[in-house]
Amino acid sequence: MAANINNQMLEAILAQVRPLLGQGKVADYIPALASVNGNKLGIAIRTVDGQHFQAGDATERFSIQSISKVLSLVAAMRQYDEDEIWQRVGKDPSGQPFNSLLQLEIEQGKPRNPFINAGALVVCDMLQSRLSAPRQRMLEIVRQLSGVSDIAYDAAVARSEFEHSARNAAIAWLMKSFGNFHNDVPTVLQNYFHYCALKMNCVELADTFLFLAAQGYAPHLSEPVVTSMQARQVNALMATSGMYQSAGEFAWRVGLPAKSGVGGGVVAIVPHEMAIAVWSPELDETGNSLAGVAVLERLSLKLGRSVY
Amino acid sequence: MAANINNQMLEAILAQVRPLLGQGKVADYIPALASVNGNKLGIAIRTVDGQHFQAGDATERFSIQSISKVLSLVAAMRQYDEDEIWQRVGKDPSGQPFNSLLQLEIEQGKPRNPFINAGALVVCDMLQSRLSAPRQRMLEIVRQLSGVSDIAYDAAVARSEFEHSARNAAIAWLMKSFGNFHNDVPTVLQNYFHYCALKMNCVELADTFLFLAAQGYAPHLSEPVVTSMQARQVNALMATSGMYQSAGEFAWRVGLPAKSGVGGGVVAIVPHEMAIAVWSPELDETGNSLAGVAVLERLSLKLGRSVY
Amino acid sequence: MAANINNQMLEAILAQVRPLLGQGKVADYIPALASVNGNKLGIAIRTVDGQHFQAGDATERFSIQSISKVLSLVAAMRQYDEDEIWQRVGKDPSGQPFNSLLQLEIEQGKPRNPFINAGALVVCDMLQSRLSAPRQRMLEIVRQLSGVSDIAYDAAVARSEFEHSARNAAIAWLMKSFGNFHNDVPTVLQNYFHYCALKMNCVELADTFLFLAAQGYAPHLSEPVVTSMQARQVNALMATSGMYQSAGEFAWRVGLPAKSGVGGGVVAIVPHEMAIAVWSPELDETGNSLAGVAVLERLSLKLGRSVY
Amino acid sequence: MAANINNQMLEAILAQVRPLLGQGKVADYIPALASVNGNKLGIAIRTVDGQHFQAGDATERFSIQSISKVLSLVAAMRQYDEDEIWQRVGKDPSGQPFNSLLQLEIEQGKPRNPFINAGALVVCDMLQSRLSAPRQRMLEIVRQLSGVSDIAYDAAVARSEFEHSARNAAIAWLMKSFGNFHNDVPTVLQNYFHYCALKMNCVELADTFLFLAAQGYAPHLSEPVVTSMQARQVNALMATSGMYQSAGEFAWRVGLPAKSGVGGGVVAIVPHEMAIAVWSPELDETGNSLAGVAVLERLSLKLGRSVY
Repeated sequence: MAANINNQMLEAILAQVRPLLGQGKVADYIPALASVNGNKLGIAIRTVDGQHFQAGDATERFSIQSISKVLSLVAAMRQYDEDEIWQRVGKDPSGQPFNSLLQLEIEQGKPRNPFINAGALVVCDMLQSRLSAPRQRMLEIVRQLSGVSDIAYDAAVARSEFEHSARNAAIAWLMKSFGNFHNDVPTVLQNYFHYCALKMNCVELADTFLFLAAQGYAPHLSEPVVTSMQARQVNALMATSGMYQSAGEFAWRVGLPAKSGVGGGVVAIVPHEMAIAVWSPELDETGNSLAGVAVLERLSLKLGRSVY
Repeated sequence: MAANINNQMLEAILAQVRPLLGQGKVADYIPALASVNGNKLGIAIRTVDGQHFQAGDATERFSIQSISKVLSLVAAMRQYDEDEIWQRVGKDPSGQPFNSLLQLEIEQGKPRNPFINAGALVVCDMLQSRLSAPRQRMLEIVRQLSGVSDIAYDAAVARSEFEHSARNAAIAWLMKSFGNFHNDVPTVLQNYFHYCALKMNCVELADTFLFLAAQGYAPHLSEPVVTSMQARQVNALMATSGMYQSAGEFAWRVGLPAKSGVGGGVVAIVPHEMAIAVWSPELDETGNSLAGVAVLERLSLKLGRSVY
Repeated sequence: MAANINNQMLEAILAQVRPLLGQGKVADYIPALASVNGNKLGIAIRTVDGQHFQAGDATERFSIQSISKVLSLVAAMRQYDEDEIWQRVGKDPSGQPFNSLLQLEIEQGKPRNPFINAGALVVCDMLQSRLSAPRQRMLEIVRQLSGVSDIAYDAAVARSEFEHSARNAAIAWLMKSFGNFHNDVPTVLQNYFHYCALKMNCVELADTFLFLAAQGYAPHLSEPVVTSMQARQVNALMATSGMYQSAGEFAWRVGLPAKSGVGGGVVAIVPHEMAIAVWSPELDETGNSLAGVAVLERLSLKLGRSVY
Repeated sequence: MAANINNQMLEAILAQVRPLLGQGKVADYIPALASVNGNKLGIAIRTVDGQHFQAGDATERFSIQSISKVLSLVAAMRQYDEDEIWQRVGKDPSGQPFNSLLQLEIEQGKPRNPFINAGALVVCDMLQSRLSAPRQRMLEIVRQLSGVSDIAYDAAVARSEFEHSARNAAIAWLMKSFGNFHNDVPTVLQNYFHYCALKMNCVELADTFLFLAAQGYAPHLSEPVVTSMQARQVNALMATSGMYQSAGEFAWRVGLPAKSGVGGGVVAIVPHEMAIAVWSPELDETGNSLAGVAVLERLSLKLGRSVY
């Protein structure tokens, strides 16, 4: 199985994709993101058998944004029974923009899945109910999974998000009106925005998410992060709802479970083989990294590693 | 890789699932489907290395209904350039019921994907534009792929569907109003309903769909059905949009690209390994075979064959 | 009460409004309407005490389009018991564009009111069920009410509408799928488009609609057209749903029950006093005659004749 | 014109309607409203020529709820230029439930009209921007208009509303996300809920709203409350959007500009003649007083005083 990956191959793919830089648009809904240099492009791969590969801006940290939604879900899966989670949030694609209230109103405050904002807010609400210090706990998880002790929140980004939080506040209050949000809205929003403001680089992300490729095991930890079945389930959710509204298009082009963030990061999983993290800040019109997706498309083709 | 499948194992799974019979509801929107015996349960598997397995009512034919949407898409992919197809129909999950007009109106007559009714109708409209006898052509394709020369349309079902076609007519006319439907509406509806009324059994379905597990090749045919990339792409579409509104739930539970029909059939693909067809007429509330999905869930677990 | 109307006053209002010509847009969804001269402006008033006033292009005929929806409703109210009508169509503003399917799908095929396309199609379906020759019957009604024997359908407009009828066909089929449409779709569409294609001038319209100002009585007919209560009810419907999506804006500016058509005509009622018809083909963005509404606004102010 | 009203006639109408008591449902979304005795029925009329009539529970105070939306709009019309108001809130019927977020999201945070919750919240936001003490100011207005100095807020109701304010908070935050809400959300919600919690009886309401029947003049005040044109405009808004989703049905049955509240009150205006206030706490399924509307229907018929 061992795919013939090496750093030169990754460099070559980056070179092929680099002409796309300039065709997307850096997220600009908050100043702290708008100021990011759109020209960045990086990739890192960590395989289950211990190899590391990387190319480009793989060690420069960026705001992981919605990639954190996978981490908060995993944290919740470790705190709650399966039923407790899935009676409050669904598992199916939404077919709507990630921050829509429309479907949420029609479906009585139950978000379609944990990777749209509403769903992630419910998950954060659940963490707030069970954890004494949810922000500190998330840092511990990420530091433990990545093996990097100085991973931290970007306080400026978190503050900036909170100052522009009206839409997410509306979502949280709407869920509260349906009884599907239990804690103080600003407190949970603060946690949510801090998770989004985690600052990590591609290498750290590939290391952190390796357990999803390795049936729940992080190689350097004695205890599994989640069960083998749970790792499979999280991958399934990423495959159907991980790329905002273009899950189908991404499955068609790339064919890997993946989660993106508006910071330009994308994490993709080749089950049983490897975790991949790419970063390029310019987004396409669906909110996914334009060059990042193109890198994954070429890599998947090169390695013959679509899951389909 | 060869999974340890055998007929006894399949029999055992059917036995475990059989208690679910009685908990679903046979499709009753047309009399010809409502009269089917809900007690049926069958499975057939065809592997890329030439093995056949089966259990239960695997040789009794039923109405394949929306499973035909994969076949009509494949037929269109053989007649049209990629761009010609995908400018008229999308690739993403709809998040709406399969026969909804709502999204279609908002999105100006372009259906979200080819596996909802609107999308399949556009595909049939495309076939009508290029094929001199679209119904005869489909029969040839199915007979060729399955190697069974007497596969035919159930005329009573097709007629019954046409007599209850108001909703699909509304969908077709709405697309016509947006310029995304070119041929005579009743003619295309007739083709569409005939495709849905194909009568096949599990063995025939597993044989017919094997090419999607075999990188586009049907073992007994000299020419590939589609390219390797196209097979991967169709599987990706099935994984994200093949199970009506519960693509995410199905990915979570089963983890295989699949397409279901309201006749109670489900075809699932284990890429590079096998095609699976199950049948049980009673449906869950999302329109998928209740027992059929349960069979696939157990089989996937037993074989360790989720793609995620 | 007798308002101090005279033709000079009407001429003066037209002169004040004429600068607006050129700021709207003639309906262009069918060629037969697109070719109308946008520069036309006319008004006619008929009072319950027998006076006539007119100015501008008051005797030039145009396509009355949706103004006919009031006439078909009145025809249905003469054929059906109240309950039979209102179980199939509602009485409330839709808040949606006149040709929307969205609300119709959510509300199970029952249109919000008889003045949106869906509602008028249900009314035409009802007429088709009870009248042996619905098109001939409508001509008789209009000729009788107006006292003008050569009022006729514009065959070119009716044909053109039918050739562009996909949207209305979708609406009819959607209602059929919910059991709220009983007759052959193309037949009813043909009736509907003929009603829309009635060719009348302002004078004829004011005469025809006078009965709504006169408690159901047309002065030259021995029998009341509708009861006094029914006249009041039709006026109420016009006041809340007669001006497409801008019923509220129109009530605010003009304050009279009214019905507009995309041919640029508007009929307004001053209960107990007069019927007013204006015509100017250029429409505002809500589909109402831009200059026509402005004429009514000035007239209402001048006469002090808002109902509010 | 003077209608032949007297107290016996009103008593007779109440007697005819009383059998309806028990068929509706008292608002129960907050305890403070749920505990109201559903059996109450009262009416008061104040004419522009100085007469008073009343019957039943006309002097028992109740929570005026959404009737206050007219008062806050009037207060804003006295503080702002016309354009400043209507660029932030529309004038047309919404066609949606009064607390819906759906339309608000689609229409970019601009509410359809000032009588749905979103619209009233924008109006309260405007008052907060201009008035130093908006709650005290509203009390002054109501006391001045009614001539009753002890009208006050029901603190228990206001508190209870605020404790169940999640839905309205979601609405306010959603508008804030679109830039159409400028002040602190909880502060404005507090004002809004206090306005809703005004406690008044039918006599006081008829007196308070008389200026809308009297071209903007309250008989005991030297200054007009609003201009004659503004009174007409507010009446027009009530006629098209005052009765939640059943503005058309109410126009059909009663035919008067009116505004209802979930406390069971309804205020109706006969322009140039009188203001009417009815009260009966049980609501129909659209949220309007079941018996109250029936009283108005009979009264309108008896007096021949539909505006249509």
